[in-house]
Amino acid sequence: MTRIGIDLGGTAVKAGLFTEEGQLLSKTEFPTVRENGRTGLLSDIASHVWTMVLEQGIPLSDCAAGIGVPGPVEEDGYTEAIPNLGIRDCYMGRELSALLDIPVRILNDANAAALGEYWTGAGRGSRSMICVTLGTGVGAGIVLNGEIVGGAHGLGGELGHVFVNPDETERCGCGATGCLDQVASANGVARYAKKLYDLPYPTAKDVCDAAKAGDVLAENTLRYCMSFLGKALCMVGYTVDPELVVIGGGLSKAGPYLLDIIYDSYKDLPKLTTKRMQFKLATLGNDAGITGAARYAMK
Amino acid sequence: MTRIGIDLGGTAVKAGLFTEEGQLLSKTEFPTVRENGRTGLLSDIASHVWTMVLEQGIPLSDCAAGIGVPGPVEEDGYTEAIPNLGIRDCYMGRELSALLDIPVRILNDANAAALGEYWTGAGRGSRSMICVTLGTGVGAGIVLNGEIVGGAHGLGGELGHVFVNPDETERCGCGATGCLDQVASANGVARYAKKLYDLPYPTAKDVCDAAKAGDVLAENTLRYCMSFLGKALCMVGYTVDPELVVIGGGLSKAGPYLLDIIYDSYKDLPKLTTKRMQFKLATLGNDAGITGAARYAMK
Repeated sequence: MTRIGIDLGGTAVKAGLFTEEGQLLSKTEFPTVRENGRTGLLSDIASHVWTMVLEQGIPLSDCAAGIGVPGPVEEDGYTEAIPNLGIRDCYMGRELSALLDIPVRILNDANAAALGEYWTGAGRGSRSMICVTLGTGVGAGIVLNGEIVGGAHGLGGELGHVFVNPDETERCGCGATGCLDQVASANGVARYAKKLYDLPYPTAKDVCDAAKAGDVLAENTLRYCMSFLGKALCMVGYTVDPELVVIGGGLSKAGPYLLDIIYDSYKDLPKLTTKRMQFKLATLGNDAGITGAARYAMK
Repeated sequence: MTRIGIDLGGTAVKAGLFTEEGQLLSKTEFPTVRENGRTGLLSDIASHVWTMVLEQGIPLSDCAAGIGVPGPVEEDGYTEAIPNLGIRDCYMGRELSALLDIPVRILNDANAAALGEYWTGAGRGSRSMICVTLGTGVGAGIVLNGEIVGGAHGLGGELGHVFVNPDETERCGCGATGCLDQVASANGVARYAKKLYDLPYPTAKDVCDAAKAGDVLAENTLRYCMSFLGKALCMVGYTVDPELVVIGGGLSKAGPYLLDIIYDSYKDLPKLTTKRMQFKLATLGNDAGITGAARYAMK
């Protein structure tokens, strides 16, 4: 079987062709076109995938696909809402399967990234892990004994909406106030750099760069924002207790410097035992999503 | 195979003999004697188990046992500390196995109770559940696809030590401050009845009885204490997302009245979807621990 992994994002769609064992054979990327609705978007994805497979000289009938989408996906593949794409109440995996005439399984994008890191990235060889994606928002995926924890209602690993910050005044995209997403995401870091110290850094990358260059207030901003991630991870340690925490997403490009700040914010919180989860940086970068989606594919 | 389930508590040890399918054949209970150390305690357990099995006319060699203990248990059966029993750094399952000359597996007591409810109690037929035990402390166990989530460091389901209450002033037994255990356990309810309103009810049962009889301040106490359980369960919904929440332990004897208060404290918190976890009362009572320990036994 050849595996197709698709990562449906708000601005771009990525797709990759993988061997059974996880070797990347080919990949492609194209803009997410929303104007023609869900049907148009799925036709677009199908034709790009079809072309990619054809170019590799592989029979499509030998393939199975996985697709990661930016919203909760229930066990049977149902998605209630993908607000970023204006999509509601559908089974996109089944629809794409009908278009391509191959099996297509659907999962949440952060869960796909986690499964990718577990399969061929930083989590390879671990028995249990959580992969936290610090991007525009905070996503996460939990892998136990090789299986993604999707959840009974598609909410497995939705760490971004755990309540952590009673001092938050703004409302999260989900409708609640005080979500991890609001403070520990790239958007959160940039917002708090302005809010806490009125720093002149428009993006989280600027904040990280300034902090690394010795700007104490920029570092304080990062420590403040990551303190909430530390709390959320302590809570993960007391519920699922994975062996490993993998940190990925755009913000993780700040590297070991950021990883140390995150670990510092966690390490003194659990008091019940002296054991701690291991922390690693993600290694697959932007390919984590297509890799995990490909791993999720099944004939 | 005949299954032996043992529940090692701070004041009493319970043991039960079960068929392969979970039917209880016989049970026994005896005081937890600490004076003779771990070796004395294990000898005591072995002799009571031996007698129980002998009385049923079942060959011990046909049996396998599970034992639930009040502390974290790592994947290989290692326990760093069981403070309640003054036990440290050991493999009690292996030691009991050597005494009885049958396979013995060890797990955390709240995890055993959860597995018991999943096997023959309130969780029967569910695909994923968390069982929260509201007793002296708050324990919990998570079951996914029939397997208990023990955790890489034995901390799976240690919901009692999740940080929930920034206003807490006292220190939890674990050393941290603001743990769920401190406010939502039977001890926590009794303490907050005094602290919030100076109510004359020495136990959580008294608080529940008064609340049911119309004492508004007693009901407010319960709603306050359970509000933190609601927050912790919302967080569980955003990480593991189980189908079902089972509420057990001494406090759950307050029945549907308490279950409704707990559900009320949870139902409006998650905003990301309209889906909610189901809530049920535990059905096995004090037998949950021995039942789950028996389920955990393996030849």
